[in-house]
Amino acid sequence: MYKLKCIVKYDGSDFLGYQRQPGKRTVQGEIEKALMHISRGEGIETHCSGRTDAGVHAIGQVFHFETDLKIPIKQWKYIFNNALPEDIYIETVEKAAENFHARYLATEKEYRYFILNESVPNIFKRKYVHQYSGKLDRQAMKEACRYFVGEHDFTTFSSAKSTVKGHKVRKLNSLEMLEDDQTIQLIFKGNGFLYQMVRIIAGVILDVGRGRYKPTDIPKLFDKKDRQAVGRTLAPSGLYLWQVNYK
Amino acid sequence: MYKLKCIVKYDGSDFLGYQRQPGKRTVQGEIEKALMHISRGEGIETHCSGRTDAGVHAIGQVFHFETDLKIPIKQWKYIFNNALPEDIYIETVEKAAENFHARYLATEKEYRYFILNESVPNIFKRKYVHQYSGKLDRQAMKEACRYFVGEHDFTTFSSAKSTVKGHKVRKLNSLEMLEDDQTIQLIFKGNGFLYQMVRIIAGVILDVGRGRYKPTDIPKLFDKKDRQAVGRTLAPSGLYLWQVNYK
Repeated sequence: MYKLKCIVKYDGSDFLGYQRQPGKRTVQGEIEKALMHISRGEGIETHCSGRTDAGVHAIGQVFHFETDLKIPIKQWKYIFNNALPEDIYIETVEKAAENFHARYLATEKEYRYFILNESVPNIFKRKYVHQYSGKLDRQAMKEACRYFVGEHDFTTFSSAKSTVKGHKVRKLNSLEMLEDDQTIQLIFKGNGFLYQMVRIIAGVILDVGRGRYKPTDIPKLFDKKDRQAVGRTLAPSGLYLWQVNYK
Repeated sequence: MYKLKCIVKYDGSDFLGYQRQPGKRTVQGEIEKALMHISRGEGIETHCSGRTDAGVHAIGQVFHFETDLKIPIKQWKYIFNNALPEDIYIETVEKAAENFHARYLATEKEYRYFILNESVPNIFKRKYVHQYSGKLDRQAMKEACRYFVGEHDFTTFSSAKSTVKGHKVRKLNSLEMLEDDQTIQLIFKGNGFLYQMVRIIAGVILDVGRGRYKPTDIPKLFDKKDRQAVGRTLAPSGLYLWQVNYK
């Protein structure tokens, strides 16, 4: 037996999320179906760094699995991609240490949220960005970002439906905003993200851009510890799991 | 009664083509459903410049229809877009002359075919370009373009399944190739295109780039008057109906 670590990209548009679900098209389901095909019927279970929701994309999701298939490591990527549908692409396959675990050993994750700020809707990008056509105060949005950095109780900024009860303190290592004429990228790095946290924070930053909040309102929103205190969760189309780091 | 001329964009990915078909999701079907909604149940028939196939996109498709709805011309675009799904976008609505006809009065059409030439497949663009990862002789492709320009019998370069029997002489006004590092655009302008003609010619130009043909082979391919003489029809994902011109 040996362990393989894979970095995978996927277009989340046509998946009902990452996690395997009977009878549904999911990323894990397709990956394990491909492994079933490659191994001629052997069931191989995979473990990822953390599931993503329906419609969320990935540039650098990581998963691992164990196998004893006699396939040279250099050929794995090619064989794997050949067995996968065209909305999943394995970027790298490498041998991992015996104790490697894609979820438990991840030290930092990077998510990016893309807002397209054009006056006219771009129908060709509707599955790949969140579109907002109004005027935005980008300077205020940049200022808002820094209020989220550091260790906080993120109750206000995570789904009330979260299965994690109680402890909602997480540490956001950084939150940066990159921009060009039309596109605003919000780059989140942290060691633990609550359910829908990135999409809720992105929505609040967008609301700052629209003038609904001032950046200095954010500490008060944290204090409320109430999901109802802020606006809607932004669409999954703008969200990408960008990178997962390990020691 | 008055007549309206509309320019419409659509992302062809999730449509079974332009033309209305019972029980299928088509662009015309969705447009006429929106008009049904706007007119509160009045059936309004639309006429386009020419249908496009499943998966083919449009930047500047044109259609017209007649109505007596009391909607100010300036509000039509807004009301129309509000009633349409998010993969169709009406760019302009304007009053047309009584005798205007989107199909019969079109004098020239422009189609563009996009080839993405990157070494690694881009899963996020798979529905919007044709991807080719090998080396391409772009100079040869450019040379090939000019052999298609002018009046020819395009039998070799149109689907054998075409319903148009016999007369396959058409005039291509121009065929230009634009390129940047990764993307090659083939820009076709003409007054009549046969079934799948753009996608078949794009395939032959790609085959020239791959070294399967020399540009000087093209006149011989025309002479064969046989669809079997050339390779496969390229995917609809790369094709855009870009513009329709009228007198």
